[in-house]
Amino acid sequence: MTRPTTLADFRYDPDSDDDFIDTKFVAIEIARLLSEGDTQSVADFLVSQEIADVAAWLEELDTAPAMQAMRLLPLHDQAEVIGYLRPASQMIVAAQMGRRELARVMSAMSHDERADLFKQLDADAQEALLPSLSQAEREDLRRLAAFEEGTVGAVMTSDYATLRPEMTTSEALEALRAQAVDAETIYTAYIVDAGRALIGVLSLRDLLIARPRQKVVEIMDGEPIYVRAEAEQEEAARLIARYDLIALPVCDADDRLVGIVTADDAMDVAEEEVTEDIYKGSTLGPIETSVKDATIVMLYKARIYWLVLLVFGNIFSGAGIAAFEETIAAHLALLFFLPLLIASGGNAGTQSATLMVRALATGDVRPMDFGRLLGREVLIALALGLTMAAAVAVIGVWRGGPEIAVVVSLAMVVIVLMGALIGMSLPFIFARLDRDPAAASGPLVTSLADVLGVVMYFSIARVVLEI
Amino acid sequence: MTRPTTLADFRYDPDSDDDFIDTKFVAIEIARLLSEGDTQSVADFLVSQEIADVAAWLEELDTAPAMQAMRLLPLHDQAEVIGYLRPASQMIVAAQMGRRELARVMSAMSHDERADLFKQLDADAQEALLPSLSQAEREDLRRLAAFEEGTVGAVMTSDYATLRPEMTTSEALEALRAQAVDAETIYTAYIVDAGRALIGVLSLRDLLIARPRQKVVEIMDGEPIYVRAEAEQEEAARLIARYDLIALPVCDADDRLVGIVTADDAMDVAEEEVTEDIYKGSTLGPIETSVKDATIVMLYKARIYWLVLLVFGNIFSGAGIAAFEETIAAHLALLFFLPLLIASGGNAGTQSATLMVRALATGDVRPMDFGRLLGREVLIALALGLTMAAAVAVIGVWRGGPEIAVVVSLAMVVIVLMGALIGMSLPFIFARLDRDPAAASGPLVTSLADVLGVVMYFSIARVVLEI
Repeated sequence: MTRPTTLADFRYDPDSDDDFIDTKFVAIEIARLLSEGDTQSVADFLVSQEIADVAAWLEELDTAPAMQAMRLLPLHDQAEVIGYLRPASQMIVAAQMGRRELARVMSAMSHDERADLFKQLDADAQEALLPSLSQAEREDLRRLAAFEEGTVGAVMTSDYATLRPEMTTSEALEALRAQAVDAETIYTAYIVDAGRALIGVLSLRDLLIARPRQKVVEIMDGEPIYVRAEAEQEEAARLIARYDLIALPVCDADDRLVGIVTADDAMDVAEEEVTEDIYKGSTLGPIETSVKDATIVMLYKARIYWLVLLVFGNIFSGAGIAAFEETIAAHLALLFFLPLLIASGGNAGTQSATLMVRALATGDVRPMDFGRLLGREVLIALALGLTMAAAVAVIGVWRGGPEIAVVVSLAMVVIVLMGALIGMSLPFIFARLDRDPAAASGPLVTSLADVLGVVMYFSIARVVLEI
Repeated sequence: MTRPTTLADFRYDPDSDDDFIDTKFVAIEIARLLSEGDTQSVADFLVSQEIADVAAWLEELDTAPAMQAMRLLPLHDQAEVIGYLRPASQMIVAAQMGRRELARVMSAMSHDERADLFKQLDADAQEALLPSLSQAEREDLRRLAAFEEGTVGAVMTSDYATLRPEMTTSEALEALRAQAVDAETIYTAYIVDAGRALIGVLSLRDLLIARPRQKVVEIMDGEPIYVRAEAEQEEAARLIARYDLIALPVCDADDRLVGIVTADDAMDVAEEEVTEDIYKGSTLGPIETSVKDATIVMLYKARIYWLVLLVFGNIFSGAGIAAFEETIAAHLALLFFLPLLIASGGNAGTQSATLMVRALATGDVRPMDFGRLLGREVLIALALGLTMAAAVAVIGVWRGGPEIAVVVSLAMVVIVLMGALIGMSLPFIFARLDRDPAAASGPLVTSLADVLGVVMYFSIARVVLEI
């Protein structure tokens, strides 16, 4: 692939695998053209490109050229670009705009992205902005912004398409056409009664293949899948994935339609959820922003809690060693195998925990499968332990003689079995107690396996070596 | 919430949070009604329900009632249900059906799911099935089944909707209506020339709001985002997420349209990818099937490789300890802090690695951000190390006196800093070498941190205690 040398040459290339270099190149070109006063070339280029790419280029630019480039776009595109920017960049854009300009752009934004942006503004900026918005926009903003982070209400959007049950299919098609510009999606329409209660959903596909005289109520799905605005976000993501939905309707406690969650927003929620689970499984606290934007203090706080807790956990391992000081002093060769044995229990345990946490998260395994899987895990752990014991037996003879080899091999089998059972059981126990199984992985398993490993190793050593 | 007592009472309930009990209840009811010969009630119930749910209930039933229940559904629903079943269950269904019945159902399946099912059949079953399929279906199957696992071609489907550039918008709408029953989606249509080269995409939304006399070529997006059939699956998932697409067109090397990847298939790919990354980061090899269906041998193989490798890795830690036997024998109290210090380096390192691997995977951080993040990491690690040193200093004085306390505190700061730098750097190094950063986390970081931790601890001890 040859690299483009001017913006006019630049086009989407599925065979390029270095997005970053392209991004950098385009950003530099935009800055150069703007500094030369050639705004027309930049405008022509930007309007022909994907909004997500335009946002990525603006992220690379300094504030002044970024604002200049963005203002070359039509209002609706500006609104979309802002939706793609990182929160930190959105705040810069909002600060650069006068309240009138900001209000105009926000009116054109999709309702959920507008509410997200609004929530980030400080109270003064919020108050300053409100008078420039329409009554309906103000109310919509206040309503969406009121939902707690992590709930469906906080990710849903209110710009959905609705139909009335008594419409004919041709009236319905006309109604969707009229809503097509503003609605987040028109591929699924929501049928509401006079009190805005959700009574059905209808896909545009089913509407298109219906006969022109049929009524919406006859062809709609009258028992739609929906979710409550107060439910957890992951519930919406789970339903969209399970039922392969384009969008999921959201109702309040009285079954009134209050919003929808789209599949692409659900993908973002699922990604956040995975990140959260990965952090939980590895001694990291929640981090409110992206790692790149996080401050030193935020990262320190997210990391110190578990690290200090594990310091105290490891004190128990130390106490275990101290309890066997005499045995160790008499057989210093035992120390050679100490890191190996305690690490092996932790490693086998972490494997089991990782498998079980992931299987529980994807729904592949359910809490009631525990019994059936336990027997299998014992067999696997025995096989793993015996293989590893064979591997260390040779080293045991060489470093400490046949007696040490027996101790180390025996301890290996016992410790791997114990580690695997802890790693497998903890996620199930957490699930049964209605806590997140992800919190059971990594550190907790390793710490438990470490302490028990030390005690088992030296107990076996004492028994075998001192008879 | 009150539980339903008959199938007729059963309906979707957004406020129930125990899917499993509902699933179990419905499966038992279906089995009971079938054993009483009341097939009509079962049929009425099943056709009114979501396909994904029907599949979940069939999974709970024994083979005979499951087959009986499935055959109560219309052909098209049967085809869809099979697409939702786990691969192991699909094989049971295929084995239960005669080749004629199987061919009929497979003709009704979506093309990608049909190809997936076909690939799982053994060679004899494949040969037996082919004559019962149409010529076009045979060719489609062979073509889709030929793509290597992990490529876009292996997840794409060939039942997409196409339009010709010279059509008017009303002709285009008619054409989509005609393709609506068979196409995987009609919300995005693909415009191809006479040689099937992809020359544009058009959303149904844009088609609906266009004027009736406009031509497709005037309103289509003539520079569509697309992907090659030979590219990696994750590339398709990444593009769909980045550009918020409903479906992504797939072209061969000559830019001819050969398939599409839909957003819901991309979600499945993204989930698999996350699972793969999590496994890589925790000493697990690839597991071809679900954990629940995996055999003991499969799980043993996926786990033993790294465990034995780590045995040899930990031998180095043991050798490190052996090298300091004299120092240890003279100050046995040092052993008390050994598990603590080596674990702390590993824990801090794993945190850094987890943060960086995830940030690189989501695109939040790019390989060239390394320099900027390194300085921040040093400051955070120093802050973490100092806090942890303060926590152990007290215990150091109590267990071993002031000299040991100095050794342990000093070692803690050095080891945490070293662990954090290893954990942060490895993912970046892997990314630079074009290897998957996920492989750099957990075990590798911990092993490196362990060996270096042992050496640093006892080196500091020797210097401080023997002057």
